[in-house]
Amino acid sequence: MNLDAYFRIGETVTLGTHLFEAEAIKSFARKYDPQLFHLDEEAAERSVLGGLCASGWHTAAVWMKYNLLQLSQASGSVWQGAGQAPEFGPSPGFTDMKWLRPVHVGQMVTYTRTALGHRAMASRPGWRILTMAGAGTLASGDPAITFNSAVLVKVVSSE
Amino acid sequence: MNLDAYFRIGETVTLGTHLFEAEAIKSFARKYDPQLFHLDEEAAERSVLGGLCASGWHTAAVWMKYNLLQLSQASGSVWQGAGQAPEFGPSPGFTDMKWLRPVHVGQMVTYTRTALGHRAMASRPGWRILTMAGAGTLASGDPAITFNSAVLVKVVSSE
Repeated sequence: MNLDAYFRIGETVTLGTHLFEAEAIKSFARKYDPQLFHLDEEAAERSVLGGLCASGWHTAAVWMKYNLLQLSQASGSVWQGAGQAPEFGPSPGFTDMKWLRPVHVGQMVTYTRTALGHRAMASRPGWRILTMAGAGTLASGDPAITFNSAVLVKVVSSE
Repeated sequence: MNLDAYFRIGETVTLGTHLFEAEAIKSFARKYDPQLFHLDEEAAERSVLGGLCASGWHTAAVWMKYNLLQLSQASGSVWQGAGQAPEFGPSPGFTDMKWLRPVHVGQMVTYTRTALGHRAMASRPGWRILTMAGAGTLASGDPAITFNSAVLVKVVSSE
């Protein structure tokens, strides 16, 4: 199993484009981020954000959805560790989550992933840690969200 | 309106304790993080995580839920900007999200917020930026999640 077959260092992969619709924005906000500019069109228009927009925690979680979807499409059932596909472990976290612009209702966000590198883990033989940059960009070309992330990947030796 | 009435610098406020139940773990994962160790008990037991556990994006979003709930209880309808309660704007993001330990099904996480400071924003007169440390701790006392965050707060002058 060659990690570089899945993650070419420095190459930006488009994961997918997501339309943020009112009901999904409100549904996420009711559960996790019940502020009026995520819940109510009229109140949102009067707010500093000028209109209904998605919670930043929502726009971040949707990146993960498209990240996994792309990996699945690229390699079958990646997260089942089937065949020679990489097996993912947990993520130690990420740094520098920047919510650069609000994502308003009806806007499309195109998500990307750029592999930055991977290295062996001294503490877990057989696993590597993969670092990557994630982003979500509006149709205007302006970035809405950027961050740097990491995930553990098990190195399955080829037979 | 005195920000320090809501946010005492350096004081750690307990926001609430959340029980991570199987159906909620799976429901979040189906939408945003469909990896087997978040979706299926048996597959999770065979995985590197050793059992069903919540997505890190889920444990992060639940912090925000309890953060807003505590602010609401502390000051009425804080996010409606009513009365002398602070009006919150967007967050520019956060740094150093660390998922330190998995949150397994049936575990309780106690969320906290520690205000670190606030300062005027040169770019937005009348607004301050509040920085804070967020955390979620297991019943054992071990931290599961920590991060540093920030949010814009409108300074409403007292009459």
